[in-house]
Amino acid sequence: MAARSRRPARLTTASIRWEHGALSLLDQTALPAEERWLRCECPEDVAEAIRRLVVRGAPGIGIAAAFGLALVCAEPMRGDSALLGRVDEVVELLSATRPTAGELRSTLDAGRAELAQALPKGEGEARAALLAYAEDVCEGRCEAMQALVEIGAPLLSGGDRVLTHCNTGAIATGARHGTALGIVQAAHRAAPLDTVWVDETRPLLQGSRLTAWELDRAGVPYRIVTDASVGALMARGFVDVVLVGADRIAANGDVANKIGTYTVAVMAHRHDVPLVVAAPRSTFDLGVGSGDEIPIERRSPEEVTEIGGQRVAPPDAEVLNLAFDVTPAELVSAIATDAGVLRPPFEPAIADAFSPAAHDPALAKSTR
Amino acid sequence: MAARSRRPARLTTASIRWEHGALSLLDQTALPAEERWLRCECPEDVAEAIRRLVVRGAPGIGIAAAFGLALVCAEPMRGDSALLGRVDEVVELLSATRPTAGELRSTLDAGRAELAQALPKGEGEARAALLAYAEDVCEGRCEAMQALVEIGAPLLSGGDRVLTHCNTGAIATGARHGTALGIVQAAHRAAPLDTVWVDETRPLLQGSRLTAWELDRAGVPYRIVTDASVGALMARGFVDVVLVGADRIAANGDVANKIGTYTVAVMAHRHDVPLVVAAPRSTFDLGVGSGDEIPIERRSPEEVTEIGGQRVAPPDAEVLNLAFDVTPAELVSAIATDAGVLRPPFEPAIADAFSPAAHDPALAKSTR
Repeated sequence: MAARSRRPARLTTASIRWEHGALSLLDQTALPAEERWLRCECPEDVAEAIRRLVVRGAPGIGIAAAFGLALVCAEPMRGDSALLGRVDEVVELLSATRPTAGELRSTLDAGRAELAQALPKGEGEARAALLAYAEDVCEGRCEAMQALVEIGAPLLSGGDRVLTHCNTGAIATGARHGTALGIVQAAHRAAPLDTVWVDETRPLLQGSRLTAWELDRAGVPYRIVTDASVGALMARGFVDVVLVGADRIAANGDVANKIGTYTVAVMAHRHDVPLVVAAPRSTFDLGVGSGDEIPIERRSPEEVTEIGGQRVAPPDAEVLNLAFDVTPAELVSAIATDAGVLRPPFEPAIADAFSPAAHDPALAKSTR
Repeated sequence: MAARSRRPARLTTASIRWEHGALSLLDQTALPAEERWLRCECPEDVAEAIRRLVVRGAPGIGIAAAFGLALVCAEPMRGDSALLGRVDEVVELLSATRPTAGELRSTLDAGRAELAQALPKGEGEARAALLAYAEDVCEGRCEAMQALVEIGAPLLSGGDRVLTHCNTGAIATGARHGTALGIVQAAHRAAPLDTVWVDETRPLLQGSRLTAWELDRAGVPYRIVTDASVGALMARGFVDVVLVGADRIAANGDVANKIGTYTVAVMAHRHDVPLVVAAPRSTFDLGVGSGDEIPIERRSPEEVTEIGGQRVAPPDAEVLNLAFDVTPAELVSAIATDAGVLRPPFEPAIADAFSPAAHDPALAKSTR
C-alpha cells in the first residue's frame, strides 16, 4: 500500500480518533450509560483495550491494531534491527488478543511488511511508513464500508422487519459506517424499515447496549429481545430477513461470528427467512478452507457469572464461554461485500471477489 | 378429592412451607446470593409472589396457588354466599398471575369445587375442606414428582452430557423432587453423569442462578453457558440428551415452556440429540388441542433492560419480553410423566396416560 501524499492532520471515526500521535478509542464497555474515550499511548495499551473489548468488531480491531502498531513510532529511536524486533514483538502481542478476528493478523503482517520495505531508507522513513500504513488502513476500511453499505442496502425493502445479532454498527468497524447495521441504516433512509429486532447478545450485551444505542441515535425503530426469543419471533412470522456481520469468513463461505449466530441461522433456515452476512473483503481469510479451521476464542467465566459486578451464579460455577461460533455456508443466503453481493455456491463467488477484476468498482456494482 | 383423616401439623418442601396457618415461600428472586423466605398471610400476598417469580415453575405455582386460596380461611367468617364470592374473586386473582402455567386455573377451579361441595355442611366445614384440598394438592404433587423421577431416571445413562434449560428442580415444583432436574439428580445417583450443561436462561437467569445452585448442592457436575451457546455445543458433539420441563402441554403433545426451549429443540433436532420433556400429568391441559391455543405471557421490559438495577439499554428502548414459547410435538422425543414415558405419536399416548387404567402404578411402570 503506497503512502498518501497529503495526510490528514487527524483521523476521526465513530469509535477511533488518531490525533497528536496517540490513539483514542470510544470505550464500548461503558455504553450506553456513558460515552467516554480511552487514550492509548503505547501498543500495550491498545492490546489491553482490544482484549477488554473497549474496541471490538473485526474491522474495528483491524484499524485499532494498525494504529497500535504505529504507536511504536512514538518510542525512542533504537536502530533498524531493534526497531524490527520491537515491531515483531508488537505484531505477536496484538495478534494474540482476539484469535478469531479474521483481519487482525493479516493487517499487522502487512504493516510489518511496509516497515521492512521502508527500512533501507532509514529508521525515520520506516516509522513514517508504519504510520502512513495505519492511516491507509483506516481510510481503506472507511471506503470499503461505504461501498459495502451502498451495495448491501438494496437487499432490504421498505417495511422489512430485520433481525440482527451482536453489534455491527460504525462503532464495530472503526469506520464511518457499520457493516450489517450500516446497511440497515442506509436502507432505512432509502425506504423506512418496519422494525429492527435486536437480540441482546449475551454475555456482553452488544445488542441491547450497543446496537440499540446506535439505532436509537439513527432514529431507526427497534425492539430488543433476549437471544432465546429468536425462535419464537420466527415461528410467529415476525422476521423478514436476518442481517449479521462476521468476524472471519473462510474460503468456502463458512462464517465465524458472535456466539449465537449459528443458532439464529438454523432458526432462519427452518422458517425460510433469508440470512444475509455483511462483511468487507478484509474479513475473509482465504487461508482457511472451512469454518472448522477457524480458532474460536474462549473468554473469561466472569463475563457470564457476573453482571455489573454482581454475582449471578454459585461461587465456583464452571463456565464455558465461547465467544464465537461457525455458521456453515449452506445456511447463508447471501454475503454482501464491498465488491458486490455474493451468492451460493460461495466458494467460486468468493474466489471471484478476490480476483483483480473485482477491484474495478464498475464490475463490483454489476454483481449486485 | 377426599380430605385426609390425619393431617400433618405442617408441610415443608424445598421451596414451600405451610405452618401456623400461613404460607412461606423460598424467595427465588434472591438466589443464589441469599436464601430468604417470604411469608404470605393473604391471597393477595401469594398472587404478588407468583407474579414476581418468588415462586415459579408450573407445579410450584399450582401448590402456592392452592395455599393462596386456602388463606381465605384465615379471614373473618362472613357467611356462605359471601365466602363463595370471596373464593371466586381469589380464583380470578390467582389465575390471572401467570396465564401460560397449565395447572394454575385447573388447580384453583378444583379447590373452589371442594369448597362449594362442603358448604352445605356449614362455613367451618367448607373452610376446612379448602385447607385440606391445598394440603392434598401439595402431597399429590410430591407423590407425582416422586413417580416421575423414578420413571424418568432410566432415560439417562451414566456418563451422559445432559443439557437443560431454565430451572426444573425441587424449588420449581414446590415438591420434594424436581421434574427434569429431579430426573437428572436421580440418574446421577444411580450412575454418575459426565456433566449437565446449564444454559443461563435470560432474562431472569433461572439456569445460572437456580439450576446451578441446586446442582451445586446436589453435587452434580455442571457447566453454565449462555443461551446462545447451545448451537455451538451441539455442533461440537458436546450434548447427548436435552431434558427440559414444561409449563403446559397440549393434547397433541405441543409443549409450552420457558422462552428458548423451542430454539434448543430445533438445534437438538438438527444434531440428532434426543429432547425429553419431563412433566407430571397436572401440567397437561387436554382442553387445548395444540400449542397455538396456549396463551403466551409477556412480561415487563425491565426484566430485559435492567440487570441488578443497572440499565443496560437506551432509556426508551422498546422490548418484546415473551416469557414462553411453544415446541411442536414433532421435535419432542419422549415425555416422561408420573404415569410412564410417553412416545410419539403423542396424541394417543397422552389420551392413554389420562385414562383410568393409567392411575394403576403397576401399569404406569410397564410403560417405561
